[in-house]
Amino acid sequence: MRHSIDLNKIKIEDSFWSKHVDLVKQVIIPYQWEAMNDRIEDAESSHCLENFKIAAKEESGEFYGAVFQDTDVAKWLEAVGFTLATKKDQQLEKTADEAIDLITKAQCEDGYINTYFTIKEPSKRWKNLCEGHELYTAGHLMEAAVAYYNGTGKRKLLDCMIRFADLICDTFGAEDGKIHGYPGHQEVEIGLIKLYDVTGQKRYLDMAKYFIDARGAGDNYFLEEMKQPDYVRIFPEFDRYDTKYSQSHMPVRKQMTAEGHAVRAVYMYSAMAELAYEYHDKELFDTCVRLWENMTKRRMYITGSIGSSGILERFTTDYDLPNDYNYSESCASIGLALFGLRMSNITKEASYIDVVERALYNTVLAGIALDGKSFFYVNPLECWPDSCMDRTSKEHVKSIRQKWFGVACCPPNIARTLASLGQYIYSVEEECSYLNLFISNTTEICWNGETIQVEVKTKFPFENRVEITLSGGTKRTDFGIRIPDYAKDFTVCSNGERVEYRNEKGYAILRIDSSQTTIIVEFSAPAKFVQANPLVRADAGKVCITKGPLVYALEEVDNGNRLSSIVIDTKESLTEKWDQTLFGGVTVISASAQKISMKDWNETTLYQDSHTVLEDIEIKAIPYCYWNNRGIGEMSVWLKEKL
Amino acid sequence: MRHSIDLNKIKIEDSFWSKHVDLVKQVIIPYQWEAMNDRIEDAESSHCLENFKIAAKEESGEFYGAVFQDTDVAKWLEAVGFTLATKKDQQLEKTADEAIDLITKAQCEDGYINTYFTIKEPSKRWKNLCEGHELYTAGHLMEAAVAYYNGTGKRKLLDCMIRFADLICDTFGAEDGKIHGYPGHQEVEIGLIKLYDVTGQKRYLDMAKYFIDARGAGDNYFLEEMKQPDYVRIFPEFDRYDTKYSQSHMPVRKQMTAEGHAVRAVYMYSAMAELAYEYHDKELFDTCVRLWENMTKRRMYITGSIGSSGILERFTTDYDLPNDYNYSESCASIGLALFGLRMSNITKEASYIDVVERALYNTVLAGIALDGKSFFYVNPLECWPDSCMDRTSKEHVKSIRQKWFGVACCPPNIARTLASLGQYIYSVEEECSYLNLFISNTTEICWNGETIQVEVKTKFPFENRVEITLSGGTKRTDFGIRIPDYAKDFTVCSNGERVEYRNEKGYAILRIDSSQTTIIVEFSAPAKFVQANPLVRADAGKVCITKGPLVYALEEVDNGNRLSSIVIDTKESLTEKWDQTLFGGVTVISASAQKISMKDWNETTLYQDSHTVLEDIEIKAIPYCYWNNRGIGEMSVWLKEKL
Repeated sequence: MRHSIDLNKIKIEDSFWSKHVDLVKQVIIPYQWEAMNDRIEDAESSHCLENFKIAAKEESGEFYGAVFQDTDVAKWLEAVGFTLATKKDQQLEKTADEAIDLITKAQCEDGYINTYFTIKEPSKRWKNLCEGHELYTAGHLMEAAVAYYNGTGKRKLLDCMIRFADLICDTFGAEDGKIHGYPGHQEVEIGLIKLYDVTGQKRYLDMAKYFIDARGAGDNYFLEEMKQPDYVRIFPEFDRYDTKYSQSHMPVRKQMTAEGHAVRAVYMYSAMAELAYEYHDKELFDTCVRLWENMTKRRMYITGSIGSSGILERFTTDYDLPNDYNYSESCASIGLALFGLRMSNITKEASYIDVVERALYNTVLAGIALDGKSFFYVNPLECWPDSCMDRTSKEHVKSIRQKWFGVACCPPNIARTLASLGQYIYSVEEECSYLNLFISNTTEICWNGETIQVEVKTKFPFENRVEITLSGGTKRTDFGIRIPDYAKDFTVCSNGERVEYRNEKGYAILRIDSSQTTIIVEFSAPAKFVQANPLVRADAGKVCITKGPLVYALEEVDNGNRLSSIVIDTKESLTEKWDQTLFGGVTVISASAQKISMKDWNETTLYQDSHTVLEDIEIKAIPYCYWNNRGIGEMSVWLKEKL
Repeated sequence: MRHSIDLNKIKIEDSFWSKHVDLVKQVIIPYQWEAMNDRIEDAESSHCLENFKIAAKEESGEFYGAVFQDTDVAKWLEAVGFTLATKKDQQLEKTADEAIDLITKAQCEDGYINTYFTIKEPSKRWKNLCEGHELYTAGHLMEAAVAYYNGTGKRKLLDCMIRFADLICDTFGAEDGKIHGYPGHQEVEIGLIKLYDVTGQKRYLDMAKYFIDARGAGDNYFLEEMKQPDYVRIFPEFDRYDTKYSQSHMPVRKQMTAEGHAVRAVYMYSAMAELAYEYHDKELFDTCVRLWENMTKRRMYITGSIGSSGILERFTTDYDLPNDYNYSESCASIGLALFGLRMSNITKEASYIDVVERALYNTVLAGIALDGKSFFYVNPLECWPDSCMDRTSKEHVKSIRQKWFGVACCPPNIARTLASLGQYIYSVEEECSYLNLFISNTTEICWNGETIQVEVKTKFPFENRVEITLSGGTKRTDFGIRIPDYAKDFTVCSNGERVEYRNEKGYAILRIDSSQTTIIVEFSAPAKFVQANPLVRADAGKVCITKGPLVYALEEVDNGNRLSSIVIDTKESLTEKWDQTLFGGVTVISASAQKISMKDWNETTLYQDSHTVLEDIEIKAIPYCYWNNRGIGEMSVWLKEKL
């Protein structure tokens, strides 16, 4: 299996990504630390560190927050670990060490960590797997521990989580006397696998496998659990619990379609992919392929987002992709990227990265404002702000990014994703190293028995020229470069000469001299019109504009209101123009189009005999990921095609 | 003020309406009686009559059902009253008398009636006006009492409700010692006004006026009520109570827009209109006009439905009229018709009847299956059944009419509306009688000092010829005939001769000889394409087909699936054809159109470069009110216009 490179080996300095990645250290990590300490004025209370202090008996008081409140500090520590891997920062490390001290003090004698249950419901430990989020929280803490260990070399949190993992292994499993349950929200599987990667302890891998194998087998564990006389419902919306919600409606290996809560689903699929590889489990791997295909070819937005329903943040049915009342959670696209990366690493197929890239460049990035201070949880493809009202069918759709909440899943998730962007750039195996994403960076990679310096320089996605310099080796070796699905005329020059390449599963494989080779990749990816399968009822008769991995959108500030009245002939040419002043530099796309006129309409007429008048207009599109950075207004990805 | 005619004076025998109206007596009333007695197998328990027996101490047991469970028997009795007015039925009257005996026995010493509070929460009487529905239930019982009295001449229920109304008048009001509250769900206002109409007791009218005047004035009554230490929340969704929901967010007279729960709103507006007239209250009347204009010119579907949001069944904002996840409750269109009729009777404006007719012919009728056995609560204008899944953003949208529920508001409301259709047909005043709707009937009407026999014969809405015969009078008098907004070339012949008419507020006023006159009205109302104001984002670039008051829809059974892929050029001619075999006889409309082809698409491609292929097709449209009578399938009112 190919693997990602260590984050402490890579330095990203990219014209497109750095301004976002740098926000993590400059803005998000300090802000979240203040938030978790309840030092932000006007912000909802977090109480996150306070909970740990109370659980550690350093302070007295009551638990406050959601059952998964501890994950805020976990995701923060993970982002800090990734950040410190890239660049040392003594002050930040000291702060993080203090948080880790607190976590270890809040650990129970037997290794258990969860401030909600420790403070508030000690007798209910493991009694409500469906809603309690203990294993989910454990998973995030495990991921944090591994990231922090990798970033700093410090074992304290790692050892702490090993003790917790051991407790989990002793508590859950098929054996008599153990709990035959599995997490209500998948995530611990990923954490356990990462713990296995670092420690080599097979029992963690086996534990993750048990959770996957047990899910949905036999009588549903959650429904049985709810029959306990002292069962306490935590989330009112779970009242009519549909086991599909947690992908426990049937054994995982039997599942044919992506169902239920989208984040739960993709976190599970990510773990499944790794387990399938580790155990040479073809049946499980085939399940991963099947679910990937169903999800990405029938249930995914062009922006790489998933989960169409606002209620329960869930998948609905094939081709049901409404644009204006969807959920499309930022976290779900993060999970989709995690799953895709693993599938690509196993199969060496570049096509998985096409989806990963789509998710990262569009939905994940749209989730965070350019100043790093506000966030979208929900990512509509069409927004008419006036209609996004509280207590209506669109109450989940916000027309402006939200400040950090008391309970925040997406913001820290986006932070850790940006901080670990390096994991997506390369995939490495013994014989070959592969460049997945065109992001400027310098790194060193070990393959083919030696360490090679690699430098990538590019202004992608706005220019499609990538310069890759490899040096420091002594041998000839293979190097792969992803040929994106949108790339035309993909050419490669090596040390100044055009070379032929072998196309292996979507990668251009070159045989190079690792002592000193400069590769120039060029391709064309002009702005173009893209359509959805007409089975997608919401997009029939519509087109959207894309350029490379970027989906473009129209905003009211550039195009006036009533974006749904715009009609475009796809024979019109799309003009690309660089605008240095916008969003730190961006290619905007313009075209001639038409708009249904308000002439002959007045405010007192709602319906009248048909007589459409079209006016000529010029439209201007910007990358979807940057929408809503210039105030509130209408936005639309899909435009009516003039037929 | 013009008034409707007595239902016991009119006999409807109409080619379009009779098959629906007759269902009330033949199917709905007997079925609901069985349902209320819990004698329907596989149906949810109603317990409605059982509750009354327990409250009457005839049986012992617990209350079961919603707080407004009593309204089921109220609406049933009202429908029975209307039905008996039209035609005597001893057996039915005996059954109804038994139910009335039970209600009177369940009445408390002081006049109070409500089985929920009597059985379950006697100490909470009037303590939760927001959610308790006591006044709402009282209102429906008052309406039933008046209908039953009018239909049979029997006073037992009327006297019973007079006692209850007296109690309400003694309990509520501005005076010290009285409760300064108002109903959480408006309806008692209508009931009190009807009681005033029958008894002439001004205190009932004053009571209704108090409820209107008090609403939204000063500190919000409901929010204050919720502060009671022993306040018990009945509906969990009221947890973040928005006072707009019950139109109590500001004094009624200050309200500029139709807000909140649509049924509550239109029931209130109906009462307001009558009160404005009775008290010569210009300010209140202007409020009615303003709210009517806002609602019907910015917030109403072309099918005459209102309330865009599935969550809280509420109005949202101007021009927000999504077609596939709207609520558009059948009951709200019933309330709209009630309000429109009153506004028309006050103003003598025919334009109000245009809206009433639209609501009745489309949404109200769509609410009931052709066999009278299943019902829509929610009335989408576009339906893709696969996507209407439980526990998603579309969970409120059903792709097939539902059987009678344990708690059913729409079915009995549709029943009482059909049973009282006669009230909409004529409006009468001293000097003139007006024909509002073109429905075949025979009646006698008193105006101009004498009783005139009137007979209407027509095959409207499929033929636009109406023959009106007046006889039995001795004088010359005025008779008005509504000129619908869709009518072209409206001509009138009197006794064989073309006559000129005076157009007064949309009515053709004729001076006729009431001893014997035959009027032939003819107009043209061909099928046509209609558009929505482009501010309605959901309908921009779309057209729908209408014919007279009927909105047409495409169904999958006639047009294949993917209705959203159909594109129509409005220059195409619409062909009308009579089909005797369909829905008991209907004009279907066909036209040449095109459809986006699935050629070049396969199941594994979700997005690809734009290259639309159109195929020529023939479309077939049927009246919206009849959709979903031939099994489950896609349906769409709005079609893409070829631009």
